[in-house]
Amino acid sequence: GAQGIGLCRTEHMFFEADRISAVREMIVAKNVEERTKALAKLLPMQREDFIGLYKEMKGYAVTIRYLDPPLHEFVPTEKADIVALAKEMGLTYETLQKTIDELHETNPMLGHRGVRLSVTYPEIAKMQTQAVIEAAIAVNKEGMSVVPEIMIPLVGDIKELQYVKAVVVETADAIIKAAGVDLKYYVGTMIEIPRAALLADDIAKEAEFFSFGTNDLTQMTFGFSRDDAGKFLADYYGKKIFANDPFAHIDQQGVGKLMKMAVELGRQTRPDIKLGICGEHGGDPISVEFCHNIGLSYVSCSPFRVPIARLAAAHANIKNPRK
Amino acid sequence: GAQGIGLCRTEHMFFEADRISAVREMIVAKNVEERTKALAKLLPMQREDFIGLYKEMKGYAVTIRYLDPPLHEFVPTEKADIVALAKEMGLTYETLQKTIDELHETNPMLGHRGVRLSVTYPEIAKMQTQAVIEAAIAVNKEGMSVVPEIMIPLVGDIKELQYVKAVVVETADAIIKAAGVDLKYYVGTMIEIPRAALLADDIAKEAEFFSFGTNDLTQMTFGFSRDDAGKFLADYYGKKIFANDPFAHIDQQGVGKLMKMAVELGRQTRPDIKLGICGEHGGDPISVEFCHNIGLSYVSCSPFRVPIARLAAAHANIKNPRK
Repeated sequence: GAQGIGLCRTEHMFFEADRISAVREMIVAKNVEERTKALAKLLPMQREDFIGLYKEMKGYAVTIRYLDPPLHEFVPTEKADIVALAKEMGLTYETLQKTIDELHETNPMLGHRGVRLSVTYPEIAKMQTQAVIEAAIAVNKEGMSVVPEIMIPLVGDIKELQYVKAVVVETADAIIKAAGVDLKYYVGTMIEIPRAALLADDIAKEAEFFSFGTNDLTQMTFGFSRDDAGKFLADYYGKKIFANDPFAHIDQQGVGKLMKMAVELGRQTRPDIKLGICGEHGGDPISVEFCHNIGLSYVSCSPFRVPIARLAAAHANIKNPRK
Repeated sequence: GAQGIGLCRTEHMFFEADRISAVREMIVAKNVEERTKALAKLLPMQREDFIGLYKEMKGYAVTIRYLDPPLHEFVPTEKADIVALAKEMGLTYETLQKTIDELHETNPMLGHRGVRLSVTYPEIAKMQTQAVIEAAIAVNKEGMSVVPEIMIPLVGDIKELQYVKAVVVETADAIIKAAGVDLKYYVGTMIEIPRAALLADDIAKEAEFFSFGTNDLTQMTFGFSRDDAGKFLADYYGKKIFANDPFAHIDQQGVGKLMKMAVELGRQTRPDIKLGICGEHGGDPISVEFCHNIGLSYVSCSPFRVPIARLAAAHANIKNPRK
């Protein structure tokens, strides 16, 4: 069995049928007031999600990642769907189409996503924090001992994390104080941008834990996206340029060098920093062994890969035991 | 005045009116034979370009960068233009549209471009080498002493460079031998992918010079593209998260750390490796001073920025003289 949830992607909750229209209202909102109103509709639903999750996990750790994908992923692209959505939202087709056009990105992988969304719209981080903290307080009142772990994705500079963490801490502390309870919570980040790994000593001043997002880190370190690399990687294997798919097994030479740097630098600042990995590499035995060897303490992976990951971690510890 | 051309982008030559149709023939070619036939039409034109360039530069160094952009940049996107092109090429609209659809990329910045094109289509590198070497031989016969510098873009692994360099060297050496002349030439690479900087000691085994492509290196190190970052960087300045535009001044903390690593690692393997920078940072005084301080020996920039770059380099050398 697993011992917690290393990555709860909150965006999946945003896509569900009962809330997608509130999400879309938030996206087309023209100002903070409109956006806050739409977010207020999402708050009780997201809070219920977290209450359910915390109860299900019975006190095991759950790391909650804040909204990550670019907002255009939540709106339709086909004309007929846009027409229907405009009608549903009481907008003209032209207005909605214009908003969608403005959201268009040339390279969405390198666009307005992750922590950048919360920098532009701190209201989102605020709503998500409310949902997390209120859920934890509610569940703890029933006798559990949830310690929320809040994970800010795609950080590349300490000031981004400082800005969003300030929103998180201010929101969380006010709720905790008003509730008159004692609640510990952690704020950490993903290390998935090369710059975050290079400056991990700096980032660790604010981040209480690191989780390596090795999918994105692989994409940016190699400079190719998973969506596009398929086309030319076949030639790379055929011509013996690459022996392995770097999305299947961590590239220990390049991506791994950045990870090792980040582990060392992070520990310089915060010796007891919690270090893990989330993403598909967490379910790959070779990658799990590598993570063990560089000193990570947890791997997160999809549920059906848990037995593989546990076995790999055990083998890695036999080959190279931790002190 | 400047002392050479640090970056001759060959793709601009591919767009010119007299050759774009041969380029498009190459792109829609269904096999090596068809592609080679289309490339044969481009060869004399590209050779003439280089002859003109070498004559103009009177023996000063010219670094020629091989084809870099994704191939879809050379084909139209509007239906009317595709219909017209199909007619011109003697193809059905459906066939051409299908080829164009296959070239579509989700994140073109992270797609099939740079060295990846020559890995898939080594014929391209072969044609470009023929053009460079034949031009140099022709011009040298008139009494000049051109030493071609061939630059392979977007390398992230030594094996990519090995593969393409083998094509270059085989082609060049055969032409030089057949001509019965003596011609020295260099093959180098751009360091513009984080992984290339991290493994620069390895890359330097094959690369005879490095030129830092700091535009791409900035995009991949920060994980945001120039085309998309405009939207959210305004918030970053407004909220004092970034003080500077990293595309205007090199980010010395993050991107600069990678550059310093690459300089040190490259020199470990090849102590006399020629090190420079190309891209817009080469015309920015603050970035030029940084490049001087980490030991680069040349900067390349757009012609109108040459006086600024020269002055900045002179100032940098007064503040921190080279031994």
